Amino acid sequence: MSLNYSPIGVFDSGLGGLTVVKELIRQLPREHIVYYGDTARVPYGTKSKESIIRFSHENTRILLKRNVKMVVVACNTSSSYALVQLRKHFHLPIVGVIDPGARKAAEVTRNRKVGVIATPATVNSRSYARAIFRYDRAIQVSSQACPLFVPLVEEGWLRKPVTTAVAREYLKPLRKTGVDTLVLGCTHYPLLKSVLKDVMGAKVALVDSATEVAAEVKRILQDRQLLRPSAVRLFPSGRRARYSFLISDRPQQFEKTAREFLGYNIKAVKI
Amino acid sequence: MSLNYSPIGVFDSGLGGLTVVKELIRQLPREHIVYYGDTARVPYGTKSKESIIRFSHENTRILLKRNVKMVVVACNTSSSYALVQLRKHFHLPIVGVIDPGARKAAEVTRNRKVGVIATPATVNSRSYARAIFRYDRAIQVSSQACPLFVPLVEEGWLRKPVTTAVAREYLKPLRKTGVDTLVLGCTHYPLLKSVLKDVMGAKVALVDSATEVAAEVKRILQDRQLLRPSAVRLFPSGRRARYSFLISDRPQQFEKTAREFLGYNIKAVKI
Repeated sequence: MSLNYSPIGVFDSGLGGLTVVKELIRQLPREHIVYYGDTARVPYGTKSKESIIRFSHENTRILLKRNVKMVVVACNTSSSYALVQLRKHFHLPIVGVIDPGARKAAEVTRNRKVGVIATPATVNSRSYARAIFRYDRAIQVSSQACPLFVPLVEEGWLRKPVTTAVAREYLKPLRKTGVDTLVLGCTHYPLLKSVLKDVMGAKVALVDSATEVAAEVKRILQDRQLLRPSAVRLFPSGRRARYSFLISDRPQQFEKTAREFLGYNIKAVKI
Repeated sequence: MSLNYSPIGVFDSGLGGLTVVKELIRQLPREHIVYYGDTARVPYGTKSKESIIRFSHENTRILLKRNVKMVVVACNTSSSYALVQLRKHFHLPIVGVIDPGARKAAEVTRNRKVGVIATPATVNSRSYARAIFRYDRAIQVSSQACPLFVPLVEEGWLRKPVTTAVAREYLKPLRKTGVDTLVLGCTHYPLLKSVLKDVMGAKVALVDSATEVAAEVKRILQDRQLLRPSAVRLFPSGRRARYSFLISDRPQQFEKTAREFLGYNIKAVKI
């Protein structure tokens, strides 16, 4: 059967990448999706470059076994460190989350001052600064690692005063620089949007790369004529899109966390 | 060479177990120690029982390859889920951190109301409640999962107002129960002692199991005549104690975190 009917593969260090899946489903409702969350080794954002690269290769291989037609690296940390190597090693389209977010930020900013919040590993990689620089060399990028945001989201403390206090602490230096655009450089952060808006003020635009990533995936599938056709009559596989969720560990509170990211309940298979 | 000269093996999900090593060095300054921190898969406290058991077996095997004479499971989550199985499977003395802490809490409490703070996995296992119950059936145990404490410690926010606010939020239910003793059921928590004292009040005793675990290790080595002898003349190995630190990943800020737990700088080998 042609690759058109194959699923899009998506991997993340854990469940945060489900925010990208949510957007893929919205923009590409006919596409099958296989998601793999490496919940046994989550988080990646505090770990070393070499481990992040090794884990990313292993995750890609798991998706390839499921016959995916392309791979979305729905993890900022993996995208920062492993994308170039993955593209060299595997011969199918691979999309990361850094470049689409960087492009959007370059489009959105008016004063050419962009802030990036992300995990320590993503910040240390300087991947966003480099990507934004490719679009506009005049943009000044300020980055801030926010390692407590992921556990705050996973604890479900999305609107607590404590969360606002943590955000105030982390964002203080960024506010001083006068950025008018803030890139949410981690798939967990869109869940903190209301807190981040409160702290940064209504005039600062928040860039959530999930929307941009899904648009990029759509563009690639169109360009390569890999979209799943909408003719439903001839093939049984022409029916509803199928979603598979694979995980390497079934963490505490799995169902609750998955529902927060995706918006509904899922069944996942531990492999 | 006799087992007396072999090292004590210690493992943890990450670097928190170094608080136990610190206490072992204090109480058993002549003993060689091999530490293994599974920093590639840290944390365990939010993961599933079956993964925690598998990881604990793998960690024990790594220590056995280093010819250890006993194993200290310096991780509350591993001790909660894997200790019984490890003892069945491996034939050397294995000490966990739950029982020594539980015994101490049972000794210390006056009003027989004990609080336990720990990771979600440790709380769900009910391991502390069962262990305390074995020492005194009349003790009422109240438990509270505090998943944000580990990332707060790893961020180095040991005395920030935000940390106090998080602690207030978590400890509110425990304060209402009127506990006079609080077990720090995670090797990271001793670093939050000053915040915890502030929040719980000076009358509540804090039980840090590291001290008790080291005392238990000493007792076992004495009973089995496995202490390293102090005669230094005959054997070259009779010199200073040697400490080896093995890790599965060299995380971001490794040196800083290790220094916080242990009190001084270490060199670690990634395996």
